[in-house]
Parts: sequence; C-alpha cells; structure tokens
Amino acid sequence: MLLRFLLLSLLYVGTPCLGWADDGYRLWLKYDQMPEASLRKAWQAQARSIVLESPTTPILQTAASELQLGLQGLLGQTVPVGKGSGKGEIHLRVAPDPALGREGYRVSTQKNGLEITGPTDAAVLYGCFALLRHVQTGQQPNQLKLSSQPRIQYRLLNHWDNPNGTVERGYAGSSIWKWYELPERIDPRYQDYARANASIGINGVAINNVNASARYLTPEYLQKVKALADVFRPYGIRVYLSVLWAAPKVIGGLPTSDPLDPKVKQWWTARTNEIYKTIPDFGGFLVKANSEGEPGPQDYGRNHADGANMLAEALGQHEGIVMWRAFVYKANSKGDRFKEAYQEFQPLDGKFAPKVLVQVKNGPIDFQSREPFHPLFGAMPRTPLVLEVQLTQEYLGFATHLVYLGPLIKECLEADTHTQGPGSTVAKVVDGSLEKHTISGIAGVANIGSDRNWTGHPVGQANWYAFGRLAWDHTLSSAAISEEWTRMTLTRQPAAVAAITQVLNQSRNIYVRYTTPLGLHHIMGQSIHYGPEPWLSQSARPDWTSVYYHKADSMGLGFDRTERGSNALALYAPGVRKLWGNPATCPPDYLLWFHHVGWKQQLSTGRTLWNELCTRYYTGADSVLWMQRQWEQAKPAVDAELYTDVASRLRIQHHEALWWRDACVLYFQTFSRQPIPPAFPPPTRPLAEIKELVDIYQLR
Amino acid sequence: MLLRFLLLSLLYVGTPCLGWADDGYRLWLKYDQMPEASLRKAWQAQARSIVLESPTTPILQTAASELQLGLQGLLGQTVPVGKGSGKGEIHLRVAPDPALGREGYRVSTQKNGLEITGPTDAAVLYGCFALLRHVQTGQQPNQLKLSSQPRIQYRLLNHWDNPNGTVERGYAGSSIWKWYELPERIDPRYQDYARANASIGINGVAINNVNASARYLTPEYLQKVKALADVFRPYGIRVYLSVLWAAPKVIGGLPTSDPLDPKVKQWWTARTNEIYKTIPDFGGFLVKANSEGEPGPQDYGRNHADGANMLAEALGQHEGIVMWRAFVYKANSKGDRFKEAYQEFQPLDGKFAPKVLVQVKNGPIDFQSREPFHPLFGAMPRTPLVLEVQLTQEYLGFATHLVYLGPLIKECLEADTHTQGPGSTVAKVVDGSLEKHTISGIAGVANIGSDRNWTGHPVGQANWYAFGRLAWDHTLSSAAISEEWTRMTLTRQPAAVAAITQVLNQSRNIYVRYTTPLGLHHIMGQSIHYGPEPWLSQSARPDWTSVYYHKADSMGLGFDRTERGSNALALYAPGVRKLWGNPATCPPDYLLWFHHVGWKQQLSTGRTLWNELCTRYYTGADSVLWMQRQWEQAKPAVDAELYTDVASRLRIQHHEALWWRDACVLYFQTFSRQPIPPAFPPPTRPLAEIKELVDIYQLR
Repeated sequence: MLLRFLLLSLLYVGTPCLGWADDGYRLWLKYDQMPEASLRKAWQAQARSIVLESPTTPILQTAASELQLGLQGLLGQTVPVGKGSGKGEIHLRVAPDPALGREGYRVSTQKNGLEITGPTDAAVLYGCFALLRHVQTGQQPNQLKLSSQPRIQYRLLNHWDNPNGTVERGYAGSSIWKWYELPERIDPRYQDYARANASIGINGVAINNVNASARYLTPEYLQKVKALADVFRPYGIRVYLSVLWAAPKVIGGLPTSDPLDPKVKQWWTARTNEIYKTIPDFGGFLVKANSEGEPGPQDYGRNHADGANMLAEALGQHEGIVMWRAFVYKANSKGDRFKEAYQEFQPLDGKFAPKVLVQVKNGPIDFQSREPFHPLFGAMPRTPLVLEVQLTQEYLGFATHLVYLGPLIKECLEADTHTQGPGSTVAKVVDGSLEKHTISGIAGVANIGSDRNWTGHPVGQANWYAFGRLAWDHTLSSAAISEEWTRMTLTRQPAAVAAITQVLNQSRNIYVRYTTPLGLHHIMGQSIHYGPEPWLSQSARPDWTSVYYHKADSMGLGFDRTERGSNALALYAPGVRKLWGNPATCPPDYLLWFHHVGWKQQLSTGRTLWNELCTRYYTGADSVLWMQRQWEQAKPAVDAELYTDVASRLRIQHHEALWWRDACVLYFQTFSRQPIPPAFPPPTRPLAEIKELVDIYQLR
Repeated sequence: MLLRFLLLSLLYVGTPCLGWADDGYRLWLKYDQMPEASLRKAWQAQARSIVLESPTTPILQTAASELQLGLQGLLGQTVPVGKGSGKGEIHLRVAPDPALGREGYRVSTQKNGLEITGPTDAAVLYGCFALLRHVQTGQQPNQLKLSSQPRIQYRLLNHWDNPNGTVERGYAGSSIWKWYELPERIDPRYQDYARANASIGINGVAINNVNASARYLTPEYLQKVKALADVFRPYGIRVYLSVLWAAPKVIGGLPTSDPLDPKVKQWWTARTNEIYKTIPDFGGFLVKANSEGEPGPQDYGRNHADGANMLAEALGQHEGIVMWRAFVYKANSKGDRFKEAYQEFQPLDGKFAPKVLVQVKNGPIDFQSREPFHPLFGAMPRTPLVLEVQLTQEYLGFATHLVYLGPLIKECLEADTHTQGPGSTVAKVVDGSLEKHTISGIAGVANIGSDRNWTGHPVGQANWYAFGRLAWDHTLSSAAISEEWTRMTLTRQPAAVAAITQVLNQSRNIYVRYTTPLGLHHIMGQSIHYGPEPWLSQSARPDWTSVYYHKADSMGLGFDRTERGSNALALYAPGVRKLWGNPATCPPDYLLWFHHVGWKQQLSTGRTLWNELCTRYYTGADSVLWMQRQWEQAKPAVDAELYTDVASRLRIQHHEALWWRDACVLYFQTFSRQPIPPAFPPPTRPLAEIKELVDIYQLR
C-alpha cells in the first residue's frame, strides 16, 4: 500500500499515473490506451470525430459521450463530438430497421468512416458499447460489420438491498443506494453503475429486496427512487420496485390487503398512478408473496394469479409489468420442497393477465451450485416465465471463492425440457420463442455492493458481466464471454488470457466437486449458508436442515425422487424423466438429486458411490492448487494489486475447500463405514474439530 | 461523474492527473505539492535526504518511509532514505530524553539540517508526522523548534463493528474489517487506516463491538486479529478486544462465567496467555457487562470490580489493561437513568486492581448533542477513568449533518468538576494529573466504515482527526484543530479556510439549537435514533422513550433533577450543584437537564421558556442556510466533487432541520398552548403529517 499511497500522491503532483494500482472500480470499462501502436493508429484513423445525425435525446447524448470517453482512453486522442471532420467520422443515427427489433444495432464501415444505427436511441447506445468492446478486445477496424439484437426483452438486475443499507446475501459491502442521502445527494457511483449495466445491455433494475419494506411506496421514498430513475434513464435503464403485499394495511391504513377487495384495488391503482406521475417510465413490480413468511393473497384464500392480476390491473394503461416470483414452499417434513412451486403454480397456467410474468429460479430448490432445471420451465406454456439466476454467491463461496457463473447459467439455458419434443430448451421457453410469447424476461440477483471493486471478489465482476451478455444473447458461449471479460478487465497478453480463462471456465465445476458433488445439495452452514454443515438436522423448518436433502443412512446417500420416493421426477416431460429416472442413465452430476444410491453401488465412472464421492471431494480441493498455479502464470500480465488480491483469495479458497472436503468425507463416512480410498490422505483432524469450527461462525 | 471517469481513464494513459477529483480517501494526508514555489523551495533545501541514525526497527522504518512519502508529495522532489547528502539532511534518532516521557518528540534545526528525536521509535514516528503537518499547513522552515508529548497514555478508537460486517451506529458503510478474508488476505486499506491513526497519535484500537461476539477469543479468530495487529504494529498501534462476559460458557464449555469461580479464572488466564502467544503486544480487554442485556458478573451476585479484577489477574504479567465500561442502567420508570452509573460504580472506587480503568461516557445519558459532564468524573479519585466520546454521529445527524465535534469534546474536557476545588477539570481527571494516576486513557467510538471517504460525511473526517489531536493534547483549542484539518484536507486559501472553519466551529451549537435546545435530550426516533420523535411514550423500556426525559406537561418542560425531583444534582460537587441547581444561574444550555421550567417563565435571555424554545428551533434551522452560504464562498478553493458532496449534504441537513423544528415546536405547543412568536412563520404542515413521516423511517 505504501507504493499505492506514494503513487496516489505523486499522481497529484502531475506526474504520469501509469503505475497506479488498479482498484477494480472501473470494472470492464478500463479504456486504458491500447498497447499496440499499429492497431491504435488504425483505429485512430477511424475515430477522428463523432457525428450525431439524429435529433438528440438524453440517451443519444449518453451514447456519444460514452463513445467519446472510451475512444479517447483507448486511442489516446481527443475525439470531438459535433460536426464531422471529413474523414474518420463515426455517425450515430436512429433509423427504422424492421430486422433489428427495438434494441438491435448495426455497426458498419461506410465511405466516410463508421456508422452506428438502430431503430431507437437505446439501440444506438448499445451499438456504441459494442464498438467500444470491439476496439477494447483488440479487434481490427477494417470492414466492420457488427449487428446484434437482444433475444430477451426484460433484462433485469434484482437487488436484495434493504432500507438500512445492508444487502441480503450480499458479500461486497453495504448497499450502493444511500437512502438517507437521497434525493438531495446523487452519489457519483450511481452513474457509473448505470454505465456498467448499459454496456452489457441490462435495461432494468429492481432496486430493493424482495423481502420488501412498504416504505418505497410512500411519497417520501418515491422522491428518492425518482432521483435514481433520473440517473438511469439516459442509460436506457428502468427502475422496478419489489413490493410488500401487506402495503395497503401497513401504509394504506386499510384493514386488509385481499386482492379482491375493491378498496385494496383502489389503493394499488392510486399508488401506481402516483408512481407514474413521479417516474413516467417506471418498470413495474416484483413480488415475493406467501413465501418464507412474506404476506400474500393466500392469507385471504386467494391464489397467486388473483394477486398478480390485481397488480396488473392497477398498472392499467401504464407500460409496466408484474414479475411474480414462484419461489414458494411450505414447511413440511413429509413433503418434497422440490415439487411445491410446481404444484402451486402449474395449475394457474393460463390464468395470469397479459402483463404478468412468473419469475422462476433456475432450479427447484434454491440457487445451489448445481441444480436440474426447474420443472416449471415448459410446464406453463401460456405464461411467460422469467428466469431468475443468482449472481451473488450465497451458496457459491461468498466473495472468497473464485466461481465464474457463465457455465451455470448456460447449463440451465441449454437444458432440454422436452416439453415440445427434443430441443425445447429452457432458453427457448424464456425467450418466448418456444411458446410464442410477446414478452420475455430474465433476472440476475445482483452481487453488487459498496466495496471499491463492486463485487468483493474481483472475478465476481465476470458474473455481473456474463449475466448481461447472456441476457442479451443466450447463444453466446460462456467461454467466449469469459475471454471477452478477461481481455477487457485483466489483460490481453495471450498466454495470460489462456491461463486465466481456463481457471474461470473450470471454476464452477471445481467448486461443485469440493462442496456438493454428484448431486448433493443444501448441506451448507445454517442460516448464514457459510461453510459445510451436512450434519444439520434441527432448524426452524425441516427443509432448512441438511439431512432433509442428503438422506444419508447406512445403506446409501441421496434423495429418492423416483416413483418409489417423492416422485418429483414426474414433474418433468417423459424424455427427461426417462433419462434421469434411471440411475444408470442419470448423469452423475444429478445422481443424488434423484436417487438414493448404495454406498457400494458401482457408478458409470467405474467407482463405487463412496469412492467416487471421496474422489470428487479430494480432486476438487486439489484443483484449487491448480487454480493458484494458473493464476501465478498470469502474474506478469496483471496489475500487481489486483494480482495479489485474487492470489490471496485463492489461498482462502483452498483453505475452505479442505474444510468442506474434510467435513463431508468424515461425516458421510459415519454412514458409509468405508475407508477413504488409499490414493487420498485421510483428514488429519477429527469431525468434532470441524464441527467446532463451523459453530464458531454461527456465534452471535 | 463523466468527467471523473474520463480523467480516470486519461489517468491511465499517462497524462497528468492534477484535475482528477478528490474522493476523500487520502483523508488529511493529502501531500499534494505545495502551491507556493518559494515556500516549496525553502523546504526542498531542508529535505534533501532522510538519515536513520539509530539501529532500525519496524516503527523507525515506518517513520522514515512515511516522512519520505509525505515530503516527496509536498515538495515534488525525491527524498532518498539512507546516508546523508551533506546538506538538507533530516536525521531521525532515538535518544533518551527524560523531559519527553515515552512518546514525546522534538523536531529542531541543526547545522546539517533537521533533526527528529524522541526516547522511543514511536516518539520519532510522531515527530515525523508533526514535521509533515508543519510543512503541509504551510509553515516556514526557518529555526524549527517543535516539541510535544501526549498528556494521555492510552489513546484508543473503539470500533462497534460486528462479525457480520455491519457497524452498530455506523453511517459510513460496512466494517473495514473483512473477517471472511482474514488472515489470508490483507486489505491494503488496513495500512492506510493505521497510517491515519498514527498521524494523529492514536496508539490503540478496540476492533470489535462492545456488544461482543465470543468468536474473537477462539484460535480461528485470533489468527485473523493477529493479521491486523501485524499491520498496525509498525505504526505503534496495539489491538484490543471487546469481550463477551459469557465467553467461558459460550466457547469454554463451562457451566458458569462467575468471576470468582476458579475454573472461570483458569479459563480466562489460559485464553489470555494464548492471546499473548499470538499477539505479544496485545493491548487488553474492553468490557460492556450487565448493560443493556449483556451478561456480566452481577448475573452471579458479583460486582463490576469482581469482574474487572478477575480479568486483570488473568492478564497477569502481560502488559495489557482492562477498560471496564460504566455505561449501565436498569429499566426503571420511577428512577432517573442519570444517576445509575454513579450509584453502581462510585461505591467501588478503590476496589479496582491497578490494571483496571473504568471507561465513562462524557455525559450521564448517552452521547446526546449536549450533556453535562458525567458525575463520575472526580467522584472516583482512586480509579483511573477513561473518557469515552462518540465520533460516529448516532445522535448528531448520522452522515447527513455537518457537525464538528471538537467543541463538544472540549466542553467536556474543560468542564470543572470542583471535586478538588475550582479548576478540577474533567481533563485533569482523565489525564491523571488531578488524582495522581500513573495510567490514563481516552476512547473515541469510531465513525469509520468502508465508504470510500471513510466517514460518509466528508467533514466526519474532522471528528476522527480532532479526537486524535485532543487525545494527544487536550489543551489544543478546537478552533486551532479545525483550521489545521481544513488546511490539510480541503484548502489553504485564507478566505476559504476562514469561511469553512466558521462553519465547523459553529456547527455543533447549530445542531443543538434545531434538535435539542436548552438542555432537552433523548427525544429522537425510536431505536434507529433518526429524526425527531418527542412524542415517543411507549418502548421496550421506559428510559428508551422521549417523554421519560422531557417531562412536558401543561405547566412546563424539563426534567427536575433538583432535590425536589430526582436529585441527580446531588451527585455533583457543591460548586457545581450550587450553580446548576438554581434555574437563575444554571446555564440555559443545561436548563432543561435539571429543571422543570414553566412555559411562561422568563429566562436569562429575556424571553419566556416557550419563546426561547421557538427562537432556538427557528434560528437553529435558519443557521443551516448560513452554513450553505459559507460553504458556497469556499467553492473556488475546494475540489469540485468534494464541494458538491458537502453542498448536497447541507441541503439534506436543512431539510432535516426543518423536520426537527416543526416536529418539536408543534408537539411541545400541544402542552404550552402558546402561539409561535410572530417573528417566525408557523409550520405549514400539521403534526400528524410529521408523525407519519417519522413512522415511514421506522418501517421494517
């Protein structure tokens, strides 16, 4: 730090700042000068000025200034915005283009220079960021032809941020929203946040926790929300609010919040009109109802459709939508949480109003490191479904484990529901193409906080980035995205890029191996969800324990969800049921999700369950050492402070990987009564010692 | 922000960064190049090199590198550390000097240049920062003679930081301690934190909340604490821990935590030895016991001395100390919380072991914006008392009100207890000179968090700074300190310095006027302590309501603490009792602390109580407009981003000042039944509307 502090102060005496450490604040929008003189020169000739051809709008002004900002940094030359310079002009123009939809763009080479066009000002903004990405990743300028349009319409971040500044399941410091300061003070960070989202095509943000406070619907807070909306608007981003179902009682003074009560309807209609008077482009409502103790329409004998449709009615002619979450489950030790969302929502298919989308998590339980796709996908053909994925690493190592989520999101998107024959992927359900929906949406639970680098773990930025890119185009490969992000954020030195992207692309599988291999799930530390706690058998609810899920006994391990068990498999289409229903054909990665397997049962891998389990825990933990070596290879090509940050987090990760490995191997061994395969050194600490360690992190 | 973002990226293409916005991270250690060429030249001649004359130690290395860092920035020349350059050498030497105590320093001009000496390496470090301060504030180099030594031995920050990363009563983001990352990752910020503390003479930090978790005493967490101690040690700073009294039960597996139980003693002794094995210079324990629900020795029929002495015994031959907090009060609607700490602790005077200091808040209630000094000061002559002041603005406007606390701290330090005749000031009690104690201490509850600028409100930095400076030398004037801070942190342009320091010096009185004038206290919003709530009459405890304190009725206002009332005044020495016991001689600022005064009673100000009350609320709120105008005057001389930040917070402050004014005037008017003096426009909103507003901020 002394060095950084020194340079910081030199920096103030007007000397060059090249050496100044990178604290990660600029995310993937680094815009450092391109190292290759020839490439820089080639681009400089193409970017002498920016010409706004269409009548200007706030979003077009943003497009021009963002393009200018980026090009000036990357090319090291001033790029005036205004009338052309004759040569090397970049023209921004809004022009109808039926082939592009509302937000699609074209970037192409014309005789006078480049042209960025699209049917709306937002489309042009996205085109500008596409061009910047193209330059920043080191592409050649000649005969440019970039064109793309989003496959999903509503691309949202969901912030689980509380009014008191904490972030539920947040691991990157406090909320970036400063409610006590708003609306008078606009933290400069709000604009940088909007810039980052717009650069990857995110066009909406639900700013408050789904376990919502009613205060956001009061005039006092709407003025604060408006101040944020005003910052986001020029970046093409709309604000959405999570609402407390009981708001009509809590702040409306009504005796009920029954969705069929006329007074309740009136109250929501009046509130909604008030919101639109304050925020004309308000995006809509996100609702968590009758879930984990939250109030909802069922409190009055109504169903989710009754509630969602009432809100849709309140939205009336306004443009907004309702995103109603399907994450519901009752405390029932006999039941199977896996099935409950399906049982409550599938029968409601066709009963939702046109403005309603049902928001479904990628898997049936809760953002585990690997889950089979949620059985609701494909099972509600008359209802547009929003895919909800988690970017904050609640069950994926907080901010101390390097876990790139591109592969997890892709795994879900590419999963084949078979609901309309082979090829009925979750992606086609979500983008609306399979069931011919006119609206579509995807939501990522944000991993963003006030930490200087936004996401705590520097590589957490890649998850924010990958979500945006996949929300825009789910056909992109997660490897292409990790390389893109690495080149923009960390380095463009080829060997380093290779070493780093290998780590990113493997990281999620490695994490699964040392925490919950073979389809194990929900065996983490109680309530804080930190560290291993497979022995957890008592909690406020049976489905908040670990034993409820792994069902370990002297015979074997795993949750039997075949017809002999909970029969959750019956919720899937025959094609899926057939494949996963048979332990012999069920992919090992999902095995214990659906089958209770004998300890000595031989798996397709050739090993018995017990030996395969041990093998995955041991090789998974060892793989973290490989991640460390890979990262070391990149050292010369990465900023020193950033390098050290990730290197030290990789040390923590190995430390915690051994913790998981020893906890799970020793605990499950008490059931399997099998020796650890000779290839692996048995843990040197007893299970009791590990339990003590887990307890320490559970202390007040 | 676009500008800043642009410059940030320019900054990376190697161009000068003079224009880059100041985000406040560097605190008062700006070290920007001195603008005045002649002055710079004069200092450059004096600072050509740094020569370490004594055998080096980590602290001396810090001294040399910090001096180099600062001088290179301020003077714009390289200042090598090593062998002399013949002329313009700065010699650092550890040399016995009985006149200086352990930490005192001398900076003086010698023939070959400057010399910084002190009896210990820490003293030399303080001398280096004193020299830097001298340069940075724009003093002349000729015939330098600086010498100073601390009047108080233990100068601590108390962090109320929780293991989950939240900060109790913190308004500057999450905790700067990253427990999940420690010990593997050392956030560079830890060193910058240590640097800032050392620069103002703070030599100890209690890193965790006094509502303590037992986990800090476990081996797992001691390794994390050790990692912090290792960063702080080269800056002369020791780590202290707040301890949970029930730790022997919670993590020791004992059936009791009775301080007289041999097993409990053994446990604490073993724990303490373990701590010192890990952290050889561990500072000691801070204890909140039998207070606000925390466990303590009284749970076993023992008293505070029994508990404190047992811990002191556990410390044994180790250097550490015990700071035992006197902040205790029982739920008792008939009683007077004012008296309880005194009643519990005063009788124990003389019963505490030599290693124990009793830590007493500045006032008898709880960090109100103005309190009479705590009656324990001067009343426990055989016990060293630590003065505890709050830097985080729990009752002083969070991070949205500009309130410089120098005057508050000085007011307490200069208060005359009369316990040994006139001149028996709190300062002399605390520094030990009055009662001839060999150890002395002072503690500031930190206002530090992960916000980029450390304290949320930029001027919050001045409170951290002022605490350190007064802890070192309580005879400094708060005005001298505010000027020093302003010149180091904001600007040295004389008119701007004058305008800004006037605001700082007035700010605390202004805040008192629009929130709790004339000695009103504890009438803020329930539990979160935000905004006004004088009508609060129901709470978990009677002494957590507002009516308990203001006692408004149709006759008048204020808490009668004379012999006709609770007689809390009897806790003070006759000299004080006599002055404050008579409404005619009691300073108006303390009037309602001690007297129930009739609404129509004429005060020394010439106005009736009601008119004076209204006058103070109105003129107080209006004074915030004056603060805004003053700040505007400084605009040309202050960094643009910093200027805007403070300017917008001043808008919030006025907004909230009107909120307080209207709430209190309208509420108390329901008792006084008097008109608001014609000079002032009556509030345009009804009380009900304000109550609704307050309720919004109380919603989940």
